[in-house]
Amino acid sequence: MTVEKAWGGRFREPAAAEAEAFTASLPFDRRLWPEDLAGSRAHVRMLAAQGILGREEADQLLRGLDAVEAEIRADRFPWRREDEDIHMAVERRLAELLGPVAGKLHTARSRNDQVALDTHLWARAAAGRLAGRVAALQAALLEVAERAPEAVMPGYTHLQHAQPVLWAHHWLAFFFMFQRDRERFLRAGEAADRMPLGAGALAGTPFPVDPARVAAELGFSRLYENSMDAVSDRDYLAELLFACALTAAHLSRLGETLVLWTSREFAFVELADAYATGSSIMPQKKNPDVAELVRGKAGRVYGDLMALLTVLKGLPLAYASDLQEDKEASFDAVETLDRSLSALSGALRTLRVDAGRLARATEGDYSTATELADHLAARGLPFREAHRVAGRIVADCLEAGRPLEALDLEELRRYSPLFEAEVLEALRPAASAARRRSPGGTAPERVREQLELARRLLEGAVADA
Amino acid sequence: MTVEKAWGGRFREPAAAEAEAFTASLPFDRRLWPEDLAGSRAHVRMLAAQGILGREEADQLLRGLDAVEAEIRADRFPWRREDEDIHMAVERRLAELLGPVAGKLHTARSRNDQVALDTHLWARAAAGRLAGRVAALQAALLEVAERAPEAVMPGYTHLQHAQPVLWAHHWLAFFFMFQRDRERFLRAGEAADRMPLGAGALAGTPFPVDPARVAAELGFSRLYENSMDAVSDRDYLAELLFACALTAAHLSRLGETLVLWTSREFAFVELADAYATGSSIMPQKKNPDVAELVRGKAGRVYGDLMALLTVLKGLPLAYASDLQEDKEASFDAVETLDRSLSALSGALRTLRVDAGRLARATEGDYSTATELADHLAARGLPFREAHRVAGRIVADCLEAGRPLEALDLEELRRYSPLFEAEVLEALRPAASAARRRSPGGTAPERVREQLELARRLLEGAVADA
Amino acid sequence: MTVEKAWGGRFREPAAAEAEAFTASLPFDRRLWPEDLAGSRAHVRMLAAQGILGREEADQLLRGLDAVEAEIRADRFPWRREDEDIHMAVERRLAELLGPVAGKLHTARSRNDQVALDTHLWARAAAGRLAGRVAALQAALLEVAERAPEAVMPGYTHLQHAQPVLWAHHWLAFFFMFQRDRERFLRAGEAADRMPLGAGALAGTPFPVDPARVAAELGFSRLYENSMDAVSDRDYLAELLFACALTAAHLSRLGETLVLWTSREFAFVELADAYATGSSIMPQKKNPDVAELVRGKAGRVYGDLMALLTVLKGLPLAYASDLQEDKEASFDAVETLDRSLSALSGALRTLRVDAGRLARATEGDYSTATELADHLAARGLPFREAHRVAGRIVADCLEAGRPLEALDLEELRRYSPLFEAEVLEALRPAASAARRRSPGGTAPERVREQLELARRLLEGAVADA
Amino acid sequence: MTVEKAWGGRFREPAAAEAEAFTASLPFDRRLWPEDLAGSRAHVRMLAAQGILGREEADQLLRGLDAVEAEIRADRFPWRREDEDIHMAVERRLAELLGPVAGKLHTARSRNDQVALDTHLWARAAAGRLAGRVAALQAALLEVAERAPEAVMPGYTHLQHAQPVLWAHHWLAFFFMFQRDRERFLRAGEAADRMPLGAGALAGTPFPVDPARVAAELGFSRLYENSMDAVSDRDYLAELLFACALTAAHLSRLGETLVLWTSREFAFVELADAYATGSSIMPQKKNPDVAELVRGKAGRVYGDLMALLTVLKGLPLAYASDLQEDKEASFDAVETLDRSLSALSGALRTLRVDAGRLARATEGDYSTATELADHLAARGLPFREAHRVAGRIVADCLEAGRPLEALDLEELRRYSPLFEAEVLEALRPAASAARRRSPGGTAPERVREQLELARRLLEGAVADA
Repeated sequence: MTVEKAWGGRFREPAAAEAEAFTASLPFDRRLWPEDLAGSRAHVRMLAAQGILGREEADQLLRGLDAVEAEIRADRFPWRREDEDIHMAVERRLAELLGPVAGKLHTARSRNDQVALDTHLWARAAAGRLAGRVAALQAALLEVAERAPEAVMPGYTHLQHAQPVLWAHHWLAFFFMFQRDRERFLRAGEAADRMPLGAGALAGTPFPVDPARVAAELGFSRLYENSMDAVSDRDYLAELLFACALTAAHLSRLGETLVLWTSREFAFVELADAYATGSSIMPQKKNPDVAELVRGKAGRVYGDLMALLTVLKGLPLAYASDLQEDKEASFDAVETLDRSLSALSGALRTLRVDAGRLARATEGDYSTATELADHLAARGLPFREAHRVAGRIVADCLEAGRPLEALDLEELRRYSPLFEAEVLEALRPAASAARRRSPGGTAPERVREQLELARRLLEGAVADA
Repeated sequence: MTVEKAWGGRFREPAAAEAEAFTASLPFDRRLWPEDLAGSRAHVRMLAAQGILGREEADQLLRGLDAVEAEIRADRFPWRREDEDIHMAVERRLAELLGPVAGKLHTARSRNDQVALDTHLWARAAAGRLAGRVAALQAALLEVAERAPEAVMPGYTHLQHAQPVLWAHHWLAFFFMFQRDRERFLRAGEAADRMPLGAGALAGTPFPVDPARVAAELGFSRLYENSMDAVSDRDYLAELLFACALTAAHLSRLGETLVLWTSREFAFVELADAYATGSSIMPQKKNPDVAELVRGKAGRVYGDLMALLTVLKGLPLAYASDLQEDKEASFDAVETLDRSLSALSGALRTLRVDAGRLARATEGDYSTATELADHLAARGLPFREAHRVAGRIVADCLEAGRPLEALDLEELRRYSPLFEAEVLEALRPAASAARRRSPGGTAPERVREQLELARRLLEGAVADA
Repeated sequence: MTVEKAWGGRFREPAAAEAEAFTASLPFDRRLWPEDLAGSRAHVRMLAAQGILGREEADQLLRGLDAVEAEIRADRFPWRREDEDIHMAVERRLAELLGPVAGKLHTARSRNDQVALDTHLWARAAAGRLAGRVAALQAALLEVAERAPEAVMPGYTHLQHAQPVLWAHHWLAFFFMFQRDRERFLRAGEAADRMPLGAGALAGTPFPVDPARVAAELGFSRLYENSMDAVSDRDYLAELLFACALTAAHLSRLGETLVLWTSREFAFVELADAYATGSSIMPQKKNPDVAELVRGKAGRVYGDLMALLTVLKGLPLAYASDLQEDKEASFDAVETLDRSLSALSGALRTLRVDAGRLARATEGDYSTATELADHLAARGLPFREAHRVAGRIVADCLEAGRPLEALDLEELRRYSPLFEAEVLEALRPAASAARRRSPGGTAPERVREQLELARRLLEGAVADA
Repeated sequence: MTVEKAWGGRFREPAAAEAEAFTASLPFDRRLWPEDLAGSRAHVRMLAAQGILGREEADQLLRGLDAVEAEIRADRFPWRREDEDIHMAVERRLAELLGPVAGKLHTARSRNDQVALDTHLWARAAAGRLAGRVAALQAALLEVAERAPEAVMPGYTHLQHAQPVLWAHHWLAFFFMFQRDRERFLRAGEAADRMPLGAGALAGTPFPVDPARVAAELGFSRLYENSMDAVSDRDYLAELLFACALTAAHLSRLGETLVLWTSREFAFVELADAYATGSSIMPQKKNPDVAELVRGKAGRVYGDLMALLTVLKGLPLAYASDLQEDKEASFDAVETLDRSLSALSGALRTLRVDAGRLARATEGDYSTATELADHLAARGLPFREAHRVAGRIVADCLEAGRPLEALDLEELRRYSPLFEAEVLEALRPAASAARRRSPGGTAPERVREQLELARRLLEGAVADA
């Protein structure tokens, strides 16, 4: 007696229920049915083209796969846990629909290369979709930037007022940060662009297969060079998860910024009611829930990356079941990113700016003190000494409770005779920002260039998503 | 106009669908309904006892909560995504069933302390359940140990044959490793034993509540000392996740051991067919799938721990929505451990030992070479010099392709005149093992003591689970 | 020819320089010399007491170990990289000082149990030291709390003003959070309280050793039950690293709080100049460097924990060199925590509070809106309905730009006839805080109890450190 | 009175010693002196070219920087902890050497963009060096592959014998895995190719700087688009650390393979004595220390990546001191990889293959059972049915204790009349391997192609390193 599994030939006992439940991947890999069917169709066509299957058999199999797809789409597919995984579920159903010819589908193929193909297809698409979602977020950032592009606000380092910057300049910093993420997702898509089918279990197959044909049909531009590598490689998922993790890091930085700026203390922006939540007990609360969750979800995505890396640690070649643990982490990271990017894009598109508040924020904040030092340095005083003079002025003002703006030229000259009248103008926040004309700087003309570039970088990108 | 949320009073726009979907925790926290209902019942009884609710109102609420429970159990509860979370779902349904009096349930309570209570209840129970599961695994380890307790096998360091050990000794090493895990889960349960209700949103409540009464009803032995700490503390979850992570590490070590020992090269044990799987392509394969998955799932659990720690990083007091991300990681880790422990216990209980293979494994493996050094050291040669002599003997044997067992006394005396006849006996693997009588050592009498202790440690524990 | 290593007997070639450099642990484990010497002394005394060494030999070895210690302390010890590790360095030097008798030190001992003993000793002490450092931080938190204990400030959830709390209440939340850390370090110390010597390489030893005597001399209260477990267990380090990681999480929360509160927007506190740093370019800057670094160092400590867990993943029994990677992660985490706790304690002890700023922060912030709802609920309106009424009041006030404090009774009665005069008092922040008298709440009498408890918890603790 | 720091102007108290020690990065960033000097030189030349510095001043500064370099190289540089970091140490020393003109060096520059430049330079070089080290490892892998290229050995999945593969095929799988790592390091180098100087503290500078000139001098091909992004971006380090982490994962897989294959049970290879270590107690031991450490060090590198990602989590713009924590993690990961790659390359170059052992390993191992199924499938039996027949044959052989090789055609025909004589040949391991001629497969002609490609991919690469 042999056991009723596709692989049951040498087995004398059926699987223990708990072992079957524990090892089955069907509950989570059934979402790969579109990839699995696409892969099987390409495989069947190639087998037929190579004469490994008869034309008629191939047609039967293709019609059977169509029928399976129809059942799944109509939610009529009879899922069974004993099927272990999506590959076996499809093949089992095909056998029910077509009879023994269904058993020809697995010719010259192993689940090891089959699941690798499915996962490559999935990862390639996921990377592309996330690149589009990032572009949508960038578009939203650009919208926010353009809402008050030349409004002056405090630029922060160490969360202390550092130097005045333009509103748009701050948001563009995020824009260009996410530009790297978008490019990273595109590269993650390229990393997945390698076709593994034909590797068989690990050693290749004696059937005269044509992997290049399968690759062409499925839009892959490269094959694996080595069949053992093909079934054990999960680098493309690690690349995708890393792209997710770094994007999640950036999202958490943006989320933190929104949490800060919607606080009563900062109050630079206000979320639309539609993107905020209330409290079950405190009637006045308006919480930046979306921003907080986006920030918190960095943990989840980091955890997904760490999970995959740990799975890979110490694993000998070629395939091992540990690799089955690649999927849930990948699905979770991609879905988390997808939803975070969408929700945050919405929150940004509906964000209100409080321009008055921004303007007041740089009043009396000493954030133009660098101008004092730069002024002296431009007049020949070594910068280090100029910094010291400016430091003394600040210290005295702080002690006297006076803003820098209250100083007049005479007073300044008591600290250094090099001071000239135009320094007083430079102490105005807007003037200070306008003077920072170095490439990438916060001066209005530089920021306009950046806005222009940002628009160009988005052309086509959002539509693609 | 105000928005139709429990907190909608100050809001003028409804929630955006994608924001609502993104922020809702109901899809994953609805599993906390038993804890939520238990907490609400205790809350209602306390409110009544303190005169904050009328007796009649309390009875109504309690009957309403019973009705909710009945609906959930019968799968008739009308779940709605707009409910955000399990707390609001229950309260909304209660209002439908009872009318305005349902609105009294949330008196002197915030979702912040309510969710903290639910999670404490869940974590305490989860820790207890996992302690029981670990005990069941220990029982299985003990069974395996007792299958051939005094069979001699190679003991490994660096995966090289080091010194002969008893079969049971090896398995007991795992037993005592998991004993620490069991104790750690019990401590994780104690970490969750702290009752947060009464903390309100963060500052306590003006109602004359009696948290001690709620604690007593729900079996908690401690309260929080500070209400802000009560709503922002997730340490008990971190402790639980750490206990999961370290147990997962241990399971991965056991899993690796099974993968090695079921390989053709080791072949010390064979998995029952019921706990092995086959290949879709290679008819001879019998894969240690369960052991591999258990090994791989360490990654997942590490990721869950890392996720929670990252969520906590840099979060100011008191509650923030980031903390909502505590749940899925915790649920996933606990469930992963639960299933891993069960599946592996089954695989162990049905494991077959190949005693002949074990016996042959120490033949000619030089693993008793330490005896040569110990023999000389016991006769006064400094151990370091004795080690050197033994090393030379091994080197010469290796070169000549002879096992240590082939040496006779005369030959040995060419290396050192201190060798006496009894050294030849000590070179037998079983004799070597039997000589290691130090506490915790591998000699049969020491191993019998360990087995005895192991049985005592399990008394009552498995039944509890 | 054999190679000149303590273990060189069977080796025919010397170690490759790069392999030697790569595998040597001496560069980082030499810091364990005090533990190594302590362990060796106890080992020698036990060997002598058991008659395994002669009294005279033991005395020689003990004098030799004293000489080694003197050389190390005087920085005259001739460290050599070829020594591989601290154990071999000491033994090699001993041989130079004493001649062949030094070779008796390693009788009945392996580096596997020796390094385990050293690490247990180190971990136990490190845990105790960190518990003391946490106590010192708690003392500093208590000092800060007592600086303006009953000053009222905004309590935050979601970084939004939630309800007024007392200054001391907020700091006490941190105090009790760190109380758990202190207890966790004490438990981590207990986890290290298990004496491994006597386990030998993995199987125990044939010499009649007395591990209990070694344990007693070194202050251990337990032995390992199983020798293989004894040499492969690193759980006590994982426990220590987890305690470090969770404390680092808490420190990052406190660090973030300081960064926020020293910002110009919050400005609740000011760091002493001695605990702040400036900018190389901006003369006005005063950066909360210590707080930021403490926050950032959470990453490092999380990384150390993840490193150790990853090392353990999939490692079969008993010892493997991978375990050598336990040390640098542990040293780094402990040292990072030690320095973070000290630096932050100093920053707190010198922190200045701006009481006026705190007082102004709750003006017109709607943070007493819960009082409106509670007031109505206490008069019989179901809380949910009361919340809705209060929400409408807040919404109307926000629209009109009026604070809650500006409302009079008549206006309130337009929303609900249940409002009574005393509600106006409750809308004052201080009064609102004072009403939250539930256990652990923010009312002054509750906070005084917490302060009292905090003082009691610290008694003796800081001195111990 | 102001404090004696470059930024001390506004400070009235000196730094607390423990705060200074805690915040100083000099102990670890002093290794960046070559990058810091290179950056300063380019900065000075640009300032002069732009007329911001006089030609003479620039020459003085350049001579001063040369003097500083000479002192550092000669180990005569007076390092002082109070210098905080490498930037201040150099500037302070310059002031001692040159007087006030040294204070001009920092014109139009902040430490924020300066440290970013240094780190970019370091990361770019580190990535290039590691790419070279990976190439050297690949060369060693190729050497090993070519040592017995067409020897047949068991190919494993699930650590069970799966199908026979060629020795070179297995090693080439590693070769191509590391090829991706090499390319990833080259991309990490490109990620670092972006020049930040000119961003100033965060907002750009009013001096008429020319960042493109600095970039050209230092070999950068791109500038940052936005100055705030320039000082807060650490993506290039995250990319480098991810490349390190994934390479470390691969190294751990290779390390595990060596640990397995040097075990007595596998014994496929033997390490040279020069790349193995012995035991302090067991004279026969020859431990694969290098392979184990390489495996274990994956944990460390994963930890470094996790550390950096955690640091970035939730950090608002622009610069914060948390970012200072980027360095030690990066240095550690790069150095760990560098040393691991070197040590393992050496171990591989000196590895001995036991060809006889390989040959025997596939005897009677059923690893050609797939041939039975493929044979039937090629004759029209649906593969699934063919698999079942082959499974029954294997089951019967296992029960009877007979190898597949013992079957004759007559017996096979009892299972299926489709069997033909040539199946018997296919059951020989070498023949089975030779039949797997699909692209990337293990047949000798395919493996020769792979070897050829591998050689081409290495051309020039190792020399570059």
